[in-house]
Amino acid sequence: MNIPKSKYPRVVIIGGGFAGVNLAKSLANNNVQVVLLDKHNYHTFQPLLYQVSTAGLEPDSIAYPLRKIIKNHKNTVFRLAEVNYINSEKQEVETSIGNIAYDYLVIATGTKTNFFGNKKVEKYSMPMKKVPQALNIRSLILQNFEKAIITKDEAKRKALLNFVIVGGGPTGVELAGAIAELKNHILPHDYPDMDINKMQIHLLEGNDRVLPPMSSHASKKAEEFLLKLGVNVHCSTYVKDYDGNQITTNTDLELQSETLIWAAGVTGAPVKGLKAEVLMDRTNRYKVNQFNQIEGYDNLFALGDIALMKTELYPNGHPQVAQPAIQQGKLLGKNLIRKVNNQSMKPFIYNDKGSMATIGRNKAVVDLKHFKFAGFFAWFVWMFIHLMALVGFRNRVVVFFNWSYNYINFDKAARLIIRPFKRED
Amino acid sequence: MNIPKSKYPRVVIIGGGFAGVNLAKSLANNNVQVVLLDKHNYHTFQPLLYQVSTAGLEPDSIAYPLRKIIKNHKNTVFRLAEVNYINSEKQEVETSIGNIAYDYLVIATGTKTNFFGNKKVEKYSMPMKKVPQALNIRSLILQNFEKAIITKDEAKRKALLNFVIVGGGPTGVELAGAIAELKNHILPHDYPDMDINKMQIHLLEGNDRVLPPMSSHASKKAEEFLLKLGVNVHCSTYVKDYDGNQITTNTDLELQSETLIWAAGVTGAPVKGLKAEVLMDRTNRYKVNQFNQIEGYDNLFALGDIALMKTELYPNGHPQVAQPAIQQGKLLGKNLIRKVNNQSMKPFIYNDKGSMATIGRNKAVVDLKHFKFAGFFAWFVWMFIHLMALVGFRNRVVVFFNWSYNYINFDKAARLIIRPFKRED
Repeated sequence: MNIPKSKYPRVVIIGGGFAGVNLAKSLANNNVQVVLLDKHNYHTFQPLLYQVSTAGLEPDSIAYPLRKIIKNHKNTVFRLAEVNYINSEKQEVETSIGNIAYDYLVIATGTKTNFFGNKKVEKYSMPMKKVPQALNIRSLILQNFEKAIITKDEAKRKALLNFVIVGGGPTGVELAGAIAELKNHILPHDYPDMDINKMQIHLLEGNDRVLPPMSSHASKKAEEFLLKLGVNVHCSTYVKDYDGNQITTNTDLELQSETLIWAAGVTGAPVKGLKAEVLMDRTNRYKVNQFNQIEGYDNLFALGDIALMKTELYPNGHPQVAQPAIQQGKLLGKNLIRKVNNQSMKPFIYNDKGSMATIGRNKAVVDLKHFKFAGFFAWFVWMFIHLMALVGFRNRVVVFFNWSYNYINFDKAARLIIRPFKRED
Repeated sequence: MNIPKSKYPRVVIIGGGFAGVNLAKSLANNNVQVVLLDKHNYHTFQPLLYQVSTAGLEPDSIAYPLRKIIKNHKNTVFRLAEVNYINSEKQEVETSIGNIAYDYLVIATGTKTNFFGNKKVEKYSMPMKKVPQALNIRSLILQNFEKAIITKDEAKRKALLNFVIVGGGPTGVELAGAIAELKNHILPHDYPDMDINKMQIHLLEGNDRVLPPMSSHASKKAEEFLLKLGVNVHCSTYVKDYDGNQITTNTDLELQSETLIWAAGVTGAPVKGLKAEVLMDRTNRYKVNQFNQIEGYDNLFALGDIALMKTELYPNGHPQVAQPAIQQGKLLGKNLIRKVNNQSMKPFIYNDKGSMATIGRNKAVVDLKHFKFAGFFAWFVWMFIHLMALVGFRNRVVVFFNWSYNYINFDKAARLIIRPFKRED
């Protein structure tokens, strides 16, 4: 492979998400050569994908070129590549652009949507893990409205205007709230000759409350907010089947909908090649020790969502959100430098900064260790934290301006069908 | 068709470009019913498409939802539809969503890329008339760099880094300048391990000077600016053939390139159904009188790029740029109201506000009637005029911020391959 030679040991990182990017930053201009690989040429700020889906933000402001992130890292090389196989004997990865040798390999490939083996749901539902998927949802919502206004078939119209979100975690809750705001503030003006009450939003959650990973206070408040916005919340309800129109569930709830957004779960996106026993069966995460080393390998590491580090406090691993990925990425950078210098590595201790979700304007929930709150202040904190977490000054300013504009004008201005969504049959 | 009944006569407008949108605005809340039809749900600000192609602006800031434009027009209905046929006997148009009756029909469909019958050029070259096409060019430029950096084949690398733009009108000149700025300021930082001098930009123009519709002063200055930026300008040169790699021309210039951007000409995009003789052969424009009425029809009109109004000053019709479209749209609105009220219509007189093109930072040319200038001030005027012409406050602010950011940082931040470009074979 056409990668410049270096006198330093080479660290290959697979994946430019929160974990991979923070690791690369932590290794910048140190005595290792870093090769960052990703299928995309940009980092995606996943927590705001739902705002792209609902026309609140343009895609370009939550994506950031990976080459720009590493611009001043003299020791770092980026390659647009998909990794197909890890050959740990030869210490190389087999990729779409050829084989790449490594001294240390870090897997930070994150997760993919989990359809729990249901092929029909996989075929007909809309996942939302990537920018193009979020844009597909944006197109589909708007296309459905354009179709609904011209059809003479009442049942068809109802199905077009029924938006069903499966999964009451932060993604599902935030998305349901944002679609409700489209209904409450924007679409009635865009479609004055349509009865907006025909639009229905349903949120289905298998657990007995929304936001199951958060406190019961947050769950209660979030459900209150959702109901206030007009979302139909169905707890203890999971989808049994979907054929593109008819949704059947475990309860007597049956819905006709042309739009099923699937935010019900994720599973690891591991790379082929390692011993089968390093992968945790159900969640597809790599079992790692407290240094993020993959069990049984000395120079192989896994970070973030794809890593399963069992600790006393987190017997099932850390939550699959941004913070563990960021913190593990930063620490592993320091640890790799220590390892290269024959120093001992430091164990990872997760600093839980709390969790939060936003439901709509002035409506969010925040869980801190000793303090739980909801409403306007929580919403303000949510915005501030997400704004600061965005990569790049330009993206922060554009997002801040869009939020201010949307807030003042009760608007979401990016309601564009740039590329119409076509279901592949 | 499912369009609300109205007691007023119905004006159907085909196309939401500069002409259609200005006509709709001019008819807002008047005693006619307006039905605006477009294939897209947004208005495209075409003069800035080249900045989307070159990662300077995000697509969402030069597109504007058509439904948002007509939000406060109580008498106006938008439908997402493609018009296939005009039945002037029955006074209705046949569309992708059914037939729609009209009392007055206005064709404002603009132009499409003209490949002058060369099927191979059409297959392998990149046009730039629509937002998705501009995004394809953006993806392709970046993909070529990602490929060039890994290939071991020198000839292949050269072809990947050879960017050929055909057509030295404003679009071609602006695009060539913007790609040169990518080369001069941005790509060397993104690809530090590649020799940027291997990147070549060629601009081909059939005429003996670039910007042929403008003054010879503007042409001379524009060519100077292009050369200064490192663009290879080939005048009196036109493309004879292109097979996806090899470009042959009428001169001894032969180029290998994976990227041929086609900005060499446009032709009208008429709708089927009218008498053949109303269309001008070569340019596919509808022959209209001074009221924009199509020859031989009383209630059929054509506007902007698709209208050919021969006058003493413009024996070959008005230039196919934004200003005639905007001015004709505004006037036709007033004229239709006059016609409905049985008053006589007023003839169109084009107010030529001049023309301009920008080549790069601090480099533009402006032709006014009595005054021609070039350089920093021209560039500043160009920016101001384009900013003010953008639809919507939000788009203006986002574009202004991006321009300021790009100017200060010598950056174009949207270099994202959101959807990779795949050539269809």
